[in-house]
Amino acid sequence: MPTADLRLEYSGALDSAVGATHGMSTAEIDAEAGRVRNVVAEIEAERANGQHRYRELPKDSRMVALVRAAVRRFRPGAENLVVLGIGGSALGNTALQTALNPWTHNLLPTATRRGPRLFVLDNVDPTQIGAMLDYLSPALKKTVFNVISKSGETAETAAQFLIIRDLLARRLGKAGLAKRLIVTTDPAGGILRDIVTREKYANLPVPDGVGGRFSVLSAVGLFSAAMCGINVTRLLAGAAAMSRRAAQPDPRKNPAAMLALLLVGFYARGKRLHVMMPYSQQLRDLADWYRQLWAESLGKRDDLSGRTVMTGPTPIRALGATDQHSQVQLYRDGPNDKVFIFLEVERFARDVKIPRAAGTPAELAYLQGGTLGKLLNAEKRATEYALTANERPCLTIRFPRVDEHTVGQFLMLWEAATTIAGRLLNVNPYDQPAVQLGKDMTYALLGRRGFEAQARELQAALKQRGRHEV
Amino acid sequence: MPTADLRLEYSGALDSAVGATHGMSTAEIDAEAGRVRNVVAEIEAERANGQHRYRELPKDSRMVALVRAAVRRFRPGAENLVVLGIGGSALGNTALQTALNPWTHNLLPTATRRGPRLFVLDNVDPTQIGAMLDYLSPALKKTVFNVISKSGETAETAAQFLIIRDLLARRLGKAGLAKRLIVTTDPAGGILRDIVTREKYANLPVPDGVGGRFSVLSAVGLFSAAMCGINVTRLLAGAAAMSRRAAQPDPRKNPAAMLALLLVGFYARGKRLHVMMPYSQQLRDLADWYRQLWAESLGKRDDLSGRTVMTGPTPIRALGATDQHSQVQLYRDGPNDKVFIFLEVERFARDVKIPRAAGTPAELAYLQGGTLGKLLNAEKRATEYALTANERPCLTIRFPRVDEHTVGQFLMLWEAATTIAGRLLNVNPYDQPAVQLGKDMTYALLGRRGFEAQARELQAALKQRGRHEV
Repeated sequence: MPTADLRLEYSGALDSAVGATHGMSTAEIDAEAGRVRNVVAEIEAERANGQHRYRELPKDSRMVALVRAAVRRFRPGAENLVVLGIGGSALGNTALQTALNPWTHNLLPTATRRGPRLFVLDNVDPTQIGAMLDYLSPALKKTVFNVISKSGETAETAAQFLIIRDLLARRLGKAGLAKRLIVTTDPAGGILRDIVTREKYANLPVPDGVGGRFSVLSAVGLFSAAMCGINVTRLLAGAAAMSRRAAQPDPRKNPAAMLALLLVGFYARGKRLHVMMPYSQQLRDLADWYRQLWAESLGKRDDLSGRTVMTGPTPIRALGATDQHSQVQLYRDGPNDKVFIFLEVERFARDVKIPRAAGTPAELAYLQGGTLGKLLNAEKRATEYALTANERPCLTIRFPRVDEHTVGQFLMLWEAATTIAGRLLNVNPYDQPAVQLGKDMTYALLGRRGFEAQARELQAALKQRGRHEV
Repeated sequence: MPTADLRLEYSGALDSAVGATHGMSTAEIDAEAGRVRNVVAEIEAERANGQHRYRELPKDSRMVALVRAAVRRFRPGAENLVVLGIGGSALGNTALQTALNPWTHNLLPTATRRGPRLFVLDNVDPTQIGAMLDYLSPALKKTVFNVISKSGETAETAAQFLIIRDLLARRLGKAGLAKRLIVTTDPAGGILRDIVTREKYANLPVPDGVGGRFSVLSAVGLFSAAMCGINVTRLLAGAAAMSRRAAQPDPRKNPAAMLALLLVGFYARGKRLHVMMPYSQQLRDLADWYRQLWAESLGKRDDLSGRTVMTGPTPIRALGATDQHSQVQLYRDGPNDKVFIFLEVERFARDVKIPRAAGTPAELAYLQGGTLGKLLNAEKRATEYALTANERPCLTIRFPRVDEHTVGQFLMLWEAATTIAGRLLNVNPYDQPAVQLGKDMTYALLGRRGFEAQARELQAALKQRGRHEV
């Protein structure tokens, strides 16, 4: 299949579309382009020194070989694949699956599916996990569990792992357990690596120097994708193609740089809510993946010079046409504090015709003989127009079609844009210092040794604020 | 089962928790309480004059009888139920199902499910609908379709209806079609009512004077719920109980009034992002339902005196513990522009034990012997503490358990709070004037007669702004 490039259109974000108060002019974009050129050149130079390692994942043929070998081992007879992971160890897996396999995948009979049913358990809700265990219980011998955690210390994944390990060992014995479990973790150390080594579980590496939210194109995301029939070679080829475009200094040739330039520019103008609105059910969970990448990378208290800035856009996932009936009233008429990023599909993998039939009322005649794809894309264009008519800036990322190559491009587009945006906002896009306190307080509440002081701190705070309720 | 009341805790939103800059004091709440008392009294007086009709739905025994009769007719032999609806004709249906039936419902064998598989098709994505049609095609005789649209003119639902009607008529004949279709629409008029009358389809009424986003407790939401085994009597009893609490003038006895007071108060202080974060997979889609209710009701350009205000909080759906690994970095360290509304479950319908096992590393000892429910709730409390430590205000809505009664309370809580908040913001919570332009432009793009001028307007605008892309 010929490749086709994703395109970023920003006509709807310019002053010619939304006015000078809320739009950017091409002159402003040109003025920023110089700074962006320097940033891109810096990043490319740093890559040569081993930084921004996620950019090199598309060329990691050793990793792909490991994934393929694992798939050859675990695929035969697998009816269910359960991913135990959370955050960066779950969002990419889900997004690849829903983008590239049918909506009904898990309901299809074995012969029709391209691989096992996929369940990504990214929470520790006991009713959900309980229902899942009931469902899987008669089929454990046909189920593969992929535990994904770099350190092994993530509380949610560790709890799930302890439950599944115990269940499999009790039901299938130690040998049966080893046949059904594959662990994706740090290749060098950490408690999960220690367990893998001691108990001889099949395993895959979480690559060094790649943070969780940039790891979808590593074994973290690729194993479940390949198990479910997704062509990971083409996915990586798409990512590699975008990585090449993202190395161009000129933002007029580099969609990642232009995206960062525009979104940081709009953030500076008070458009702090960055709404991604795919007009495609398949692309919906890619917006959820983006939501982590953009929030966790750019939401920072301190900038790189140590100043307190409390910065960061709030990413929002919406869905077209569905959210026209939920959010568009607010989006058009509420505060002008948002920029919209539409995802549009030019050619759907299939289309559904809207039939002509006798007795259809005249009010619906306009639908007849058309297709759902045509309707959906008309709604996208109409909604964008309605937003720009109210001076709300809009971007569109256009997928010529949805396939492994374009999805790979999309993932790399946003990862590269995130690095550039971090540089433009002068923050570190690769850390997440604010999540530690919640982890520590969870330990404190569960009585983990060494967290007694935190437990006292928390109790004192709760006592001081009292209890106010209705 | 004894009933148990939802509770709204706001200790984490007070100055004693988050400081005077970002928290409210009890004195400020008391000062607002007088105004809120008047608003509640006004609303209650208006109810006596036939306004705010959604409040009377829990007592509509005629409607419940109609729903039950329809279920008796359509339930036997039904393996699949497909709801064709969008916005207020879909979000409540989905939320009831995922809150009150197991996560695995659609995967379970017939004997284990409490009713048919449920598919709520709230979009017109051709790949999704195409996959759905492939799946249902061999089982049309065991499938019930519930088309929901008050007017019948909603483009998405109308297109779906035309497709399904044609398919059923071709495959099962006109008599077979009538056996498999039930239409929920305006009882008095509209194009869908005309079709129902002419073609003699089974039907249920969309109640008069109740807008789509307030309609979940009518036949709109109740038919699919009752089909799937949900106890709608208890659901309505919960809603009725909350309606009584919402009639109390004193916000210290009225959780809907207190919620409106607090959230409008925080909006006025610049906390314009209202993040609902259930720590429960079951309650996740209730947050999506809330998202429509809050956005479409309060997001308004003009206030009731005709002034341009462009007001309205932006509701955001998050999920605990999952989004701790995606959004909490931003929530704690980014701009302090959010208020958090946690949903907490005190007693989960089931819990899953985390087993003790030899060879578990010391770092995970704190998990062993506990349960997932205990872990999840510890994470909620820890995350709330971490947010308040950074001066981010937090509310908690506490579910003693998740069942029909508490879910009914929750729905009515937010509907009543929306009416009160609309009054406090001086906007009309029941209209959505901004959605019309997008509809008109969709018609224009699809060549609907009468929209030629709009088509020219759109083409001219697009031509003027040109095409800028990378």
